[in-house]
Amino acid sequence: MFDRDGLIDRLTEEIYRRVQIEQEQASRMSRGSAIADLIGAGADRVAIRPGGAPVAATVGALIDHTLLKPDATRKQIDELCAEAAQHRFKSVCVNPSWVSHCARKLAGSGVVVCTVIGFPLGATPPEVKAFEARRAQDDGARELDMVINVGRLKSGEAEYVRNDIAAVCGARRQGSLVKVIIETCLLTDEEKAMACRLARDAGADFVKTSTGFAGGGATPDDVALMRSTVGNALGVKASGGVRNREDLLTMVRAGATRIGASAGIKIVSE
Amino acid sequence: MFDRDGLIDRLTEEIYRRVQIEQEQASRMSRGSAIADLIGAGADRVAIRPGGAPVAATVGALIDHTLLKPDATRKQIDELCAEAAQHRFKSVCVNPSWVSHCARKLAGSGVVVCTVIGFPLGATPPEVKAFEARRAQDDGARELDMVINVGRLKSGEAEYVRNDIAAVCGARRQGSLVKVIIETCLLTDEEKAMACRLARDAGADFVKTSTGFAGGGATPDDVALMRSTVGNALGVKASGGVRNREDLLTMVRAGATRIGASAGIKIVSE
Repeated sequence: MFDRDGLIDRLTEEIYRRVQIEQEQASRMSRGSAIADLIGAGADRVAIRPGGAPVAATVGALIDHTLLKPDATRKQIDELCAEAAQHRFKSVCVNPSWVSHCARKLAGSGVVVCTVIGFPLGATPPEVKAFEARRAQDDGARELDMVINVGRLKSGEAEYVRNDIAAVCGARRQGSLVKVIIETCLLTDEEKAMACRLARDAGADFVKTSTGFAGGGATPDDVALMRSTVGNALGVKASGGVRNREDLLTMVRAGATRIGASAGIKIVSE
Repeated sequence: MFDRDGLIDRLTEEIYRRVQIEQEQASRMSRGSAIADLIGAGADRVAIRPGGAPVAATVGALIDHTLLKPDATRKQIDELCAEAAQHRFKSVCVNPSWVSHCARKLAGSGVVVCTVIGFPLGATPPEVKAFEARRAQDDGARELDMVINVGRLKSGEAEYVRNDIAAVCGARRQGSLVKVIIETCLLTDEEKAMACRLARDAGADFVKTSTGFAGGGATPDDVALMRSTVGNALGVKASGGVRNREDLLTMVRAGATRIGASAGIKIVSE
């Protein structure tokens, strides 16, 4: 017979474990991002941490609320910030030129500002990515989603790729996170695994599937491959094509600890 | 009766005029880019400048030979350079991380290196674009195709957009060109005209239609609109979707003085 409660318990525990690793890794305060309501209609309890403290059960705390279209207007960015504060998303993920505006808007809200570096092609030199990362943090960003140099990876230049990631990690300040977008849709499975190892070796905090601009997004298989490659040492962010709660659940089951989505409102409203 | 020779003469003259303006503007030596063979099967003469000097008749000298895919490999970049040297294209247009490699490859060939700044979203801060532009020139780039901040334009922040362009123009060195990509497919006609005026006011050398990454490329109508807005003060580069000689001819007729294309070999071989 199907042990529904047992499954819920095991999944909840697994999610905790990953969230906690992510928290320790980032040397940040507890973010209350456990998600007892994640795993289906029956998961309506408020979960308890291993230590015994109650945790707010919210899917929103897993979500980087994302708007990266080049033609996004100030009004749309303002709406994004308001939604993120209302639904207690983990972050807003915006292009670098909006970071300082969002940081002002979201001051005191508990929502951090995430931005993108070398995005979406990943083909700027390491020094440019590092400069961009420093500037974004000056502007108030606390999470940096950088794109690897895909062409160098495909040319067999692993050292270049690692140094490129390391340049951004070297620009990371206390309390900031670096996520490394490997752009799965352009890579073979072997290249995906190598990119994850290089990200881990270079000191990244997360690996992330996709920019959303290269014709393909996150798949459960890719998330699982990335998780199995980095083990529990890094977070895994699934992004691109996560459109509803079922997608999110699928990604978390596959090993994701963060979700990048423009459909955050739909996901938390379902 | 159709005056074929008269038409060829007028078009040839018009092309000269534009090329010459562009040359003076860039304070560079004559590039011999007039194109008597441009205007159809019958145009097989070597044209003569208004001053009387003979001019190499070559379509190639109009073309930025372009490879901006994020997964382009070193081998593909090397091929691009070899093709550009062989066919005497105006430039290779590559992502920033390949600039120094291409500059070494093409030293002495007469082909310059063009790269892209804030590409393709245009949504990095002005200081980041300026840093990227300086670094690209350090690496050997002589042409800088920057993307405007589309979202700011659409938010009515004209001053921001002008300052953003001016930041890159301020980083331009003697002998370098700045082309301003306005990303026509995301703009209304009014916005296209405003973007062109801002580029002109900020001191750009060219306006350019498209990144090729936003779902739409150059159209003759857009090129004509851009030409009529900037007059003869700036060059106009048509890019995105120029796939054969007929496309190129159409763009030149509409007012283009430069063509960005990945199909350069096909164009010159036709």
